[in-house]
Amino acid sequence: MKNSAYSELETRFKRLSSLREAAAVLHWDAAAMMPEGGAAARAEQLATLRVVCHEVLADAALPDLLAGAGGEPLDRWRAANLREMRRQWLHATSMPADLVAELSKAGSHCEMVWRKARPNNDFAMVLPHLEKLLSLVRAKADAKAARLGKSCYEALLDQWEPDGSTAAIDQLFGALAKELPDLIEGALAHQAKAPAPQKPEGPFPIAAQRAASLKLMEQLGFDFAHGRLDVSAHPFCGGTPDDVRITTRYDEDDFTRALMGVLHETGHALYERGLPAEWRTQPVGDARGMSVHESQSLLIEMQVCRSRAFLEFAAPILRAAFGGKGAAWEAENLHRLYTRVARSLIRVDADEVTYPAHVILRYRLERALIDGDLALADLPAAWNDGMRELLGVAPPDDRQGCLQDVHWYEGACGYFPTYTLGAMTAAQLFAAARAASPAIEPAIARGDFAPLLTWLRTNVHGLGSLLGTSELVENATGKPLDGAIFTHHLRRRYLGEN
Amino acid sequence: MKNSAYSELETRFKRLSSLREAAAVLHWDAAAMMPEGGAAARAEQLATLRVVCHEVLADAALPDLLAGAGGEPLDRWRAANLREMRRQWLHATSMPADLVAELSKAGSHCEMVWRKARPNNDFAMVLPHLEKLLSLVRAKADAKAARLGKSCYEALLDQWEPDGSTAAIDQLFGALAKELPDLIEGALAHQAKAPAPQKPEGPFPIAAQRAASLKLMEQLGFDFAHGRLDVSAHPFCGGTPDDVRITTRYDEDDFTRALMGVLHETGHALYERGLPAEWRTQPVGDARGMSVHESQSLLIEMQVCRSRAFLEFAAPILRAAFGGKGAAWEAENLHRLYTRVARSLIRVDADEVTYPAHVILRYRLERALIDGDLALADLPAAWNDGMRELLGVAPPDDRQGCLQDVHWYEGACGYFPTYTLGAMTAAQLFAAARAASPAIEPAIARGDFAPLLTWLRTNVHGLGSLLGTSELVENATGKPLDGAIFTHHLRRRYLGEN
Repeated sequence: MKNSAYSELETRFKRLSSLREAAAVLHWDAAAMMPEGGAAARAEQLATLRVVCHEVLADAALPDLLAGAGGEPLDRWRAANLREMRRQWLHATSMPADLVAELSKAGSHCEMVWRKARPNNDFAMVLPHLEKLLSLVRAKADAKAARLGKSCYEALLDQWEPDGSTAAIDQLFGALAKELPDLIEGALAHQAKAPAPQKPEGPFPIAAQRAASLKLMEQLGFDFAHGRLDVSAHPFCGGTPDDVRITTRYDEDDFTRALMGVLHETGHALYERGLPAEWRTQPVGDARGMSVHESQSLLIEMQVCRSRAFLEFAAPILRAAFGGKGAAWEAENLHRLYTRVARSLIRVDADEVTYPAHVILRYRLERALIDGDLALADLPAAWNDGMRELLGVAPPDDRQGCLQDVHWYEGACGYFPTYTLGAMTAAQLFAAARAASPAIEPAIARGDFAPLLTWLRTNVHGLGSLLGTSELVENATGKPLDGAIFTHHLRRRYLGEN
Repeated sequence: MKNSAYSELETRFKRLSSLREAAAVLHWDAAAMMPEGGAAARAEQLATLRVVCHEVLADAALPDLLAGAGGEPLDRWRAANLREMRRQWLHATSMPADLVAELSKAGSHCEMVWRKARPNNDFAMVLPHLEKLLSLVRAKADAKAARLGKSCYEALLDQWEPDGSTAAIDQLFGALAKELPDLIEGALAHQAKAPAPQKPEGPFPIAAQRAASLKLMEQLGFDFAHGRLDVSAHPFCGGTPDDVRITTRYDEDDFTRALMGVLHETGHALYERGLPAEWRTQPVGDARGMSVHESQSLLIEMQVCRSRAFLEFAAPILRAAFGGKGAAWEAENLHRLYTRVARSLIRVDADEVTYPAHVILRYRLERALIDGDLALADLPAAWNDGMRELLGVAPPDDRQGCLQDVHWYEGACGYFPTYTLGAMTAAQLFAAARAASPAIEPAIARGDFAPLLTWLRTNVHGLGSLLGTSELVENATGKPLDGAIFTHHLRRRYLGEN
């Protein structure tokens, strides 16, 4: 393979990978460590790294190298690697440089205005900036659509969900939207039959919360020789596969949210850490896409850690960590607390049952915005109508409505569906894992996650980007993504069905 | 200036600066935050950044741009900036690529062997690796000497001490070496007349040490909106001028060393933070060189913080931090503790009076090694002879002799003299500052460092690399570097002279 076009591409993508890893650590540092006065210089450092990365992908030699490598005999992993290289190159070279620069500027500016408009509940304030940004996002969608041979929305979606299809999402989300009203109604009726959960009484010192988090992370298989837990305003999983940095945010009056947040990020971290080490630094060694990534965090958080079995295991650890006593600290109560359903207005606070309604609303609206079927001025009304239809509640103001999420205001359209695709994928993978390995469920009840992790390593993590998303799901579970498995999970957990 | 060769150079060096800043933060992270499993990937990230930086300097367009800019009308700062650009370009292009790669490999390897050889007191074990490394360092010196038009040793020195001159160092170190035996003897006799200092009794919890460190850093003017204090195995000052990261290492049985270490790094940090903001990202905005940098840490540590006046101010803060009581916590005792002189074997543990003997020894030996006047096999004996001559003590083994410092074993020759040049510069700058601004000394006794910092900002920090080192010293103090000011300081502090 020496001196082939393919091996020259590997060399170039290795450089790209190291530069992106450097940027990932700097991003983490900016969120978790950096004093505020470092922000301007950090923005310059990251912008410079972005430019250097772009130069690698936009290099004039790349088209010939990609074509040349296509004619070389490549095994399965190398062929997939070449496919992913081509994908990255297509995206990187799909837009003229001035559009990239304009988008970056308009996105930063609109987000800045949004940061003021949201607390002031002032959609009109941000509207002209969002108008401008959206027109640039549409230009980006046009450019990417032409280059990738996809529809405009799919071209945007493709950035986070490679080969994501609106036809598939329409089918999955359409069926779910039909079931949701009954599901939510049924869950509320079911939980009304049991006593309301009690909130454990604080305060919960940060050191104790951190210690309990570390204990559960370790139990789940987080590798502290290759990762850390720190604090940031917005929790995330960053860093690199060999050095995974997850963050959380503690509230001394309520440990439950930070703790579950840590477990969610641990799911992302286990995925990153389990990516194929022999393909580190190559595109085929990267995580598959956002729905698979989210499936890994939701599998850990929703499927595993909000289960009764896990909470039976975790309850004594939490009691010991906080000196908790009484009924509020029993697994049964913690389970009721962690599976409480409510029709609410804010996506990030939503429970497992109502969350998809928030996502489906955003998916519908952003498609209409990109396709030109909805004027931005009509967004607040359309939002409120959608909330009434899907969730049966209407926001009293835009702050709790269409101003709540940053995504659109920084120019990110096409990201939202990956949350619920991830939830569906998580349910399907976990069901398949339990079916394939009956040891998984009893082990979880004992706090032993090794059997589950082994299955995930083999069927998801260790495959990197070898397969496409649909192929990966089918390979791991024996069938294409099937929304009924997710609703079945919801019916079992929230309606007490079998 | 638009579109001129000079402005094109500014654009390119701005990119270089951002990439180097990124690398600096990643270096800090590796020392202060990174889990050990991240080391290999981090090494790749940093190596890639080094290669990208090298490509900026080695670009084929640079010679013409430098020549073109030389013909443009440039003001004083821009002319100095161009001079520094040319300096960086000369160094970067002075060595063939294969020598760079070989040196890097041999340096890493030799250092790795040294890490085992030192605790095993086994110079023979590392000797062949050091032989190989030294021959590559000599090749590097030859290449740089040819390119820079300097002697071999000066070409190496120039990497850290731009335009450093062996003639000047020989004169300064020669005079000091003559005075040192009497000075050390006199200091020991003088301190024997006073009671021996008492060590405050621990333990000293790390949290209390950190709090006291932060309090004194803040008092000295460290800007926490643009910097942090963390922990690493080897304390250093890293990060960037807008985001200065200093580190220390706590010992629960002895707070005195970590505390003084923090104050030393604070001196470096104040320099970085005070570099001219309008020349951030350009070579002329960088710190001048290592002797000036070390002068800033030693001015704060040695001149200011080990003074009786400072310790009068600090003693109550330390008593409060640690709940200290009794004579050991009085300023007089702390001053005796912090100015204790001893003939000792280890440079990094040496006091202010004996430290130069350690440096002069290393300077003599590394010059002889580079010039081919000393065979490596004879290094241990030459080291021990030099210790006897300069300090009147002889190491019982090589671990406490020529194996103690990492510098040579990683290929760094020409660095050592900057420590003592820095000490001399610190004494001269502080004397000039006090003479120029009589408010400085009484303010320090009150814990007010603003008058001193103002003088340093104007005369040192804010000048960046506008002036050469000698020019900077002469500009700030009215005369060239004069070793007699340093020895005068030592005589006053350690021999009680006036």
